[in-house]
Amino acid sequence: MKPPTPSKGNIYLIGFMGSGKTRVGTALARRLGLPFLDTDAEAERISGRSVARLFREGGKAGFRRLEQRVIAAAAAGPIRVVAVGGGAVTRAANLRAMRRSGTVVRLRAPFSVIRRRIGKGAGRPLWDASGVLFRRREPLYRKAAHVAVDASGTPEAAARIIACRLGLERRSPAPSAPGELMVRTGSHSYPVLVGSGVLDAVPARLGRLTSARRAVLVSDARLAGGPGRRLAAAFRRSGWKLSAAFLPGAEGAKSLSAIARLYGFLLRSRTERTTPLVALGGGTVGDAAGFAAATYYRGIPLVHVPTTLLAQTDSAIGGKTGVNHPLAKNAVGAFHQPVLVAADTDLLASLPDREFQSGLAEVVKTALALDRDFAEGLLERWGSLQSRSGAELAWAVSRCVRLKAAAVAEDERDLSGRRELLNLGHTVGHALEAAAGFGRFRHGEAVAWGLRAAFRLSAERGWLADPGDRALASALLGRLRTPAWPARLSWSHLNRHLALDKKVRDGRSVMILLRRAGKAVRVPGVALGDIRRVVARLSTEARP
Amino acid sequence: MKPPTPSKGNIYLIGFMGSGKTRVGTALARRLGLPFLDTDAEAERISGRSVARLFREGGKAGFRRLEQRVIAAAAAGPIRVVAVGGGAVTRAANLRAMRRSGTVVRLRAPFSVIRRRIGKGAGRPLWDASGVLFRRREPLYRKAAHVAVDASGTPEAAARIIACRLGLERRSPAPSAPGELMVRTGSHSYPVLVGSGVLDAVPARLGRLTSARRAVLVSDARLAGGPGRRLAAAFRRSGWKLSAAFLPGAEGAKSLSAIARLYGFLLRSRTERTTPLVALGGGTVGDAAGFAAATYYRGIPLVHVPTTLLAQTDSAIGGKTGVNHPLAKNAVGAFHQPVLVAADTDLLASLPDREFQSGLAEVVKTALALDRDFAEGLLERWGSLQSRSGAELAWAVSRCVRLKAAAVAEDERDLSGRRELLNLGHTVGHALEAAAGFGRFRHGEAVAWGLRAAFRLSAERGWLADPGDRALASALLGRLRTPAWPARLSWSHLNRHLALDKKVRDGRSVMILLRRAGKAVRVPGVALGDIRRVVARLSTEARP
Repeated sequence: MKPPTPSKGNIYLIGFMGSGKTRVGTALARRLGLPFLDTDAEAERISGRSVARLFREGGKAGFRRLEQRVIAAAAAGPIRVVAVGGGAVTRAANLRAMRRSGTVVRLRAPFSVIRRRIGKGAGRPLWDASGVLFRRREPLYRKAAHVAVDASGTPEAAARIIACRLGLERRSPAPSAPGELMVRTGSHSYPVLVGSGVLDAVPARLGRLTSARRAVLVSDARLAGGPGRRLAAAFRRSGWKLSAAFLPGAEGAKSLSAIARLYGFLLRSRTERTTPLVALGGGTVGDAAGFAAATYYRGIPLVHVPTTLLAQTDSAIGGKTGVNHPLAKNAVGAFHQPVLVAADTDLLASLPDREFQSGLAEVVKTALALDRDFAEGLLERWGSLQSRSGAELAWAVSRCVRLKAAAVAEDERDLSGRRELLNLGHTVGHALEAAAGFGRFRHGEAVAWGLRAAFRLSAERGWLADPGDRALASALLGRLRTPAWPARLSWSHLNRHLALDKKVRDGRSVMILLRRAGKAVRVPGVALGDIRRVVARLSTEARP
Repeated sequence: MKPPTPSKGNIYLIGFMGSGKTRVGTALARRLGLPFLDTDAEAERISGRSVARLFREGGKAGFRRLEQRVIAAAAAGPIRVVAVGGGAVTRAANLRAMRRSGTVVRLRAPFSVIRRRIGKGAGRPLWDASGVLFRRREPLYRKAAHVAVDASGTPEAAARIIACRLGLERRSPAPSAPGELMVRTGSHSYPVLVGSGVLDAVPARLGRLTSARRAVLVSDARLAGGPGRRLAAAFRRSGWKLSAAFLPGAEGAKSLSAIARLYGFLLRSRTERTTPLVALGGGTVGDAAGFAAATYYRGIPLVHVPTTLLAQTDSAIGGKTGVNHPLAKNAVGAFHQPVLVAADTDLLASLPDREFQSGLAEVVKTALALDRDFAEGLLERWGSLQSRSGAELAWAVSRCVRLKAAAVAEDERDLSGRRELLNLGHTVGHALEAAAGFGRFRHGEAVAWGLRAAFRLSAERGWLADPGDRALASALLGRLRTPAWPARLSWSHLNRHLALDKKVRDGRSVMILLRRAGKAVRVPGVALGDIRRVVARLSTEARP
């Protein structure tokens, strides 16, 4: 057997129909954090016809022509796992295209296994139960492949064997081990590294996702010394070239003028379409640098290295990027999913206390909105979280990432309401943040007050009826540290900012409230009068 | 039977497994120009597991819970055709969600037909060949549906019946008749109306794609009187509210500052995430307004109404949007597919001659790059095209749209080289346009010179060997009207602009050349010396 080619480029899975190319490919792509392409499915998508119909209408030759175009496109595109139609090996051009642009892996299974898997062959125009075609094809697969792998077991087993054979899983922890989570959306899937020291693993992990060896690091100047220097050193150790750009501090980064200057830097440093942009910083840097990555030459690869608790648990996941317009916050933006996120919990140790407490408000929000068990865990571990124990932080960040990833998978573009549940606390929170004057409250602090308002409004409806639920939510909200409600903030002032919210109409607001602990619901018509009463009570009490 | 609900909202297809929900749904979505969702496929995508595995691992109840979330999300999302898993009707919450948010259509087929279609039931965990489950389910489907349709024939036939029954195809020409083409990409599909008078059909067609009844019209001021007034009147006749914004003329529109002002207009006029932005104009307006639509609140629906030959045949199709940066043209942009394109060939009658001739260069480019038959047709009909006959223009625009749509379907993000073939003539064309000073040459005029250079370079390699091919290409290029090559343009000046192209390295350039008429290829290493020689000859001759 030929020695396995070290895996650069695509991984092509070839083999007879029923050898499991699609299932093994899906499992392998998930394992390696790579996108997946099935040439049959792609041919169906391009033509708008099923494979069976393509054969019926255009004949075998017509289908093979289309398939050849699909394979040529895959060979020229970004690195992927590609499941290749069973008959593609009959064309020499396909073999050349595949062998040049990646590693060709043959899936082997005995004909008896294949016959069982295929059944009657519905939708398989070439299925031949006699085994003649199988025997004719096998030498072609053997000749085409760099590596052969037994695929008569489960898809996961075959995927594991392939990853090892190609030298992609040399070290433990393996990519699918704890510490690496996956976010899956309709358009992309990407790994999220969580834990102590994952910063240093960024260049190697990124190197498996791209063939680029030049990157642009964008951060704010305050980070240049510590994590910036460490990340830059890790890139250089791995043989990368790195340019570094800085955004203005605080919300100054999130302006069209800062982005225009960043475009200028990217152009002058000859940043190409394939050059990854690595955004190191809190939510502000992530949003602004992410927007630049989304729109520089119609999108370049983006890596988020979030440095705050808020960014690690929330804003770095899900592909929202954007900047402010003088007339409205976050009015300008784009969806642009990152290719990699690395949430290094070591970075949280040096966060200013107020920043850290503000981030905890969003953690509590996520738990109360979506996961009672997580909320209980938070309460139990509150002390160790406050002391910023690495293990506890990694636990909390992972839980948040998983919950956010599930919401994003269901609702990438924030259309169907699933992501909207994570806006718990944000109706009153946003209005308070704006009415008090931006900068007076940190975002998480305003959200904490918003959570308290949502809690009261939920309880008034008779929700959170279970005493345990109510005690759990109340205890968590009581633990959040916030500045006092501004003494001079009038209802009319707050109301003006509530009314700017597009969710308010005819004296009623759409709000996310809590049916139970861990179960947020969208409520279309909360009366502004009710909000006013609850806010008045909150503002005169020390704690909820 | 209950009367069919007039179709607002989703169209849900229900019925027993094997009744053809996925196939009919795909055909219906294509016919109506709507997106398609299959709840089983969506559940697989979200969970990363096959339906069979979901049943194995989470049981029927686990699967039904996931399915219910998928249906609730579909009910809250944009208007689509939704193929609903066969067992979803067993949950009352699903029935409520579907009936409230659209029309529920039952696909009926005799059990004998279903048994034949299903075969052995591979991947169908609930398949029951005895028919017991079928008989138990049928009353549920009957009760759930607003409309029932026979689905024992072809998917296309069932789709046609549904479209008629729901009153979506009252008038001829039917949506799939000539005059409406479809662009299909991985993320979206959208109709392109081509022909005389389609401008007036925009509001009605758009009304079938969205529930919004407010739109923003963006054009340049020169268009306000003629097509702008006509389009606005059509919208108002159909009961839409319309605001109108104007971009600066010429390339002034394609600047970040013009876009920042447009964002301000959108905010002040309270444009919402669901409000369509209608871009009326040539390529410049389309690119700039398209970029604003791509980035205003992370993307709002975009309608292109291109008014130039160039925009109708090329730039309005394919989702590229963008503006210039002071350091580089088109450096800032995003992919944002429109929801609808309307290419009204009547608008071409009043184009200035130079603009029209410039557009013809891109038409010739498309034909020479991708379709010999089209190139021959162009030559035959050149005279009637020059007299701007409506029928001939509609023919040429449709051919271009079809070819561009196929390239976009294969290569939405311009990654795999298929879209790149449409850059034929652009290497020298771009350099000439920049070196001569922007504004001196129209884009198409510079591309015409670039096509001539590509033609010569191809012939020098012994390509275009067929005398008919060479005569065809030469005749078409000879018919393109261009200003003379600038007398004082030195090679070193042109070379400087060639070298700015990222495709140039080590004295060689990536170029698109012609292997045959209608068959462009990407050539990685064309020596700059060869380009210099060809350009020198071209610049001293009157015609190629």
